[in-house]
Amino acid sequence: MIKKDHLYMEEAIKEAKISLKENGIPIGAVLVENNKIIGKGHNKLLQGESSILHAEMDCIESAGKLKGVDYKKCTLYTTLSPCEMCSGTIILYKIPRIVMGENETLKGPEEYLIENNVELINMDLEKCKMILKSFIIKHPDLWNEEMERVHD
Amino acid sequence: MIKKDHLYMEEAIKEAKISLKENGIPIGAVLVENNKIIGKGHNKLLQGESSILHAEMDCIESAGKLKGVDYKKCTLYTTLSPCEMCSGTIILYKIPRIVMGENETLKGPEEYLIENNVELINMDLEKCKMILKSFIIKHPDLWNEEMERVHD
Repeated sequence: MIKKDHLYMEEAIKEAKISLKENGIPIGAVLVENNKIIGKGHNKLLQGESSILHAEMDCIESAGKLKGVDYKKCTLYTTLSPCEMCSGTIILYKIPRIVMGENETLKGPEEYLIENNVELINMDLEKCKMILKSFIIKHPDLWNEEMERVHD
Repeated sequence: MIKKDHLYMEEAIKEAKISLKENGIPIGAVLVENNKIIGKGHNKLLQGESSILHAEMDCIESAGKLKGVDYKKCTLYTTLSPCEMCSGTIILYKIPRIVMGENETLKGPEEYLIENNVELINMDLEKCKMILKSFIIKHPDLWNEEMERVHD
């Protein structure tokens, strides 16, 4: 199971790198059902005018309209701890298992996910922290602008 | 204030009716800042392949990338109580005031919004219930399919 989690997290990291190439924030996600990737996505806040296309949202949207029974078999891999919006979407569709790359750079409402019976696994991977950290160091203005939009 | 709330809710209802004309689920929303409508949207789950474009999400997306200080001045009008995804988005962007048309047909996590300092007003309007009820009676298959995607 751990081996598979690493494999799918690598795919989420590939998505984060695609975002980086598009001059976007390097956060990526993949949705896996029955050992098959059925959705992929990355943060698109800087690529266009979106306020809702975080990596997890873009990934869930890319999977198309699944049946309830399918969402309930999925694991969502994301390079960063899911925010309030993404956590709400995970709870709405009852995705039962989340594997995150890290929660040091930002931490979403993890207790809210746990209260709603979502299993959370934090792989605490240096490479997920580093890819985001490099972006923040290179583009503090872009990062701070996004942070200002959501923080007090 | 009540008069203005009715005025903006009428605009949200217009959005619900636009969805109906597109053979979509009649739920609408508008985002208002300083007595000006800055975003409009409606549920688009049936119009395309979206799983994330609920009325509130479509509305927030249509407003473009606002600054944090602007979201904090907004009221979001929606014809139906916001679901987990939309509530999470409201909390992420710290939209401080939600006016809903009704919460009888479906009720979202209103306590979670209140705990996060969101002011909630339920106008409990028959016309909001009726527009959605008429759709459900006419298209029980479409409605039940959407319900099956998110319910146990």
